[in-house]
Amino acid sequence: MAGKVVLHYFNGRGKMESIRWLLTVAEVEFDEVFLTTREQYLKLLSNGDLMFQQVPLVEMDDMKLVQTKAILNYIAEKYNLHGKDPKDKLMVNTYSEGLIDLMEMIMVLPFAADVKPKLDNIQKKANERYLPVFEKALCGSIYLVGGRLSCADVQLLECTLMLEEKFAGILTDFPNVKSFQGRMTRIPAVSRFLQPGSKRKPQPDDVYVKTIMEVFDIKSPFL
Amino acid sequence: MAGKVVLHYFNGRGKMESIRWLLTVAEVEFDEVFLTTREQYLKLLSNGDLMFQQVPLVEMDDMKLVQTKAILNYIAEKYNLHGKDPKDKLMVNTYSEGLIDLMEMIMVLPFAADVKPKLDNIQKKANERYLPVFEKALCGSIYLVGGRLSCADVQLLECTLMLEEKFAGILTDFPNVKSFQGRMTRIPAVSRFLQPGSKRKPQPDDVYVKTIMEVFDIKSPFL
Repeated sequence: MAGKVVLHYFNGRGKMESIRWLLTVAEVEFDEVFLTTREQYLKLLSNGDLMFQQVPLVEMDDMKLVQTKAILNYIAEKYNLHGKDPKDKLMVNTYSEGLIDLMEMIMVLPFAADVKPKLDNIQKKANERYLPVFEKALCGSIYLVGGRLSCADVQLLECTLMLEEKFAGILTDFPNVKSFQGRMTRIPAVSRFLQPGSKRKPQPDDVYVKTIMEVFDIKSPFL
Repeated sequence: MAGKVVLHYFNGRGKMESIRWLLTVAEVEFDEVFLTTREQYLKLLSNGDLMFQQVPLVEMDDMKLVQTKAILNYIAEKYNLHGKDPKDKLMVNTYSEGLIDLMEMIMVLPFAADVKPKLDNIQKKANERYLPVFEKALCGSIYLVGGRLSCADVQLLECTLMLEEKFAGILTDFPNVKSFQGRMTRIPAVSRFLQPGSKRKPQPDDVYVKTIMEVFDIKSPFL
């Protein structure tokens, strides 16, 4: 039997949060090892656990998985959250790539020297480039692709929650997306993940930023 | 019968070049429409051809594909260049994600205000983070994953050629990678693609940069 899934990352969202979300929806239990010191990171490096010297690292099925999107694809494929045929998979990947582009813009904000123009740009792109696509895709559809739940739906839920944290009311003009969000949050595993005390991580704070800078030996904000 | 594959992008490498490489190795013929004016871009937008307002756009199998990695995955899947089972696919995706990270660092150089420190960083990362991984993977193996050609091999070839353009001799310490590059260039389709007059694009020049800035209405270098 394959052992339990173990996530190695900082005690914060970053690139791991989409993996936590996907495992949650797939109803896969996981343990977490939080990276808090540079020594831990150097040990992972010297063990050869980090192929490209980066986290996330996910231990799963007796393998050590790295590269966020490769990990997400593997989990999606394994738990039937990746579209039923090549064309559905293409659509799932296309939506997913767009959502990850948008979430990455939010993810890097704590490392920005000047946040305001970046926030404005995110809000504009969300309103004009991204949300209209999903509003249209969800017109008359329960899920984004092929009438069934996929990793793109999970990422859209994650992304809309992140957007609302930054821009309350941003979904007002996107009623299909808002209804979708409501449906998704009623999935039992999702509902539990949204409760306090779950493995969902809060918005990044100063401790999270300071930890990352120490672990990676970064001297100043890099954006 | 599905029509011919048509690529819509600038007359330069950018995010399309990996798609050109993969189609070449899959022996899929393609036509190209070059984006040279803002009007062309606005027309693609108003036609609704660009889901997230971005290129690459690839017309293929009666669909309009966007998002580079989604496109690459679709082509790799269709032409058996994506690993034979979930674990091989995971490895292909992992290598592929790493290679695209590295190639993107090179891709954005023409838009950087100060190139020298970025070049130094790329050289250091190539030598310390990326090339050692591939040198090891190719020890005793013809291809990166599962003993057969995959999109990761195609991207590794593309990436090593890009690296050598910037840092002649960088493969000296990586003999397995250098041998791999030699083997790959002897594949007939690859050999033809490397000849003058093929659809392979040269390194970016001032015209390429100026065109992108005009088409996207960008006022200054953005890195």
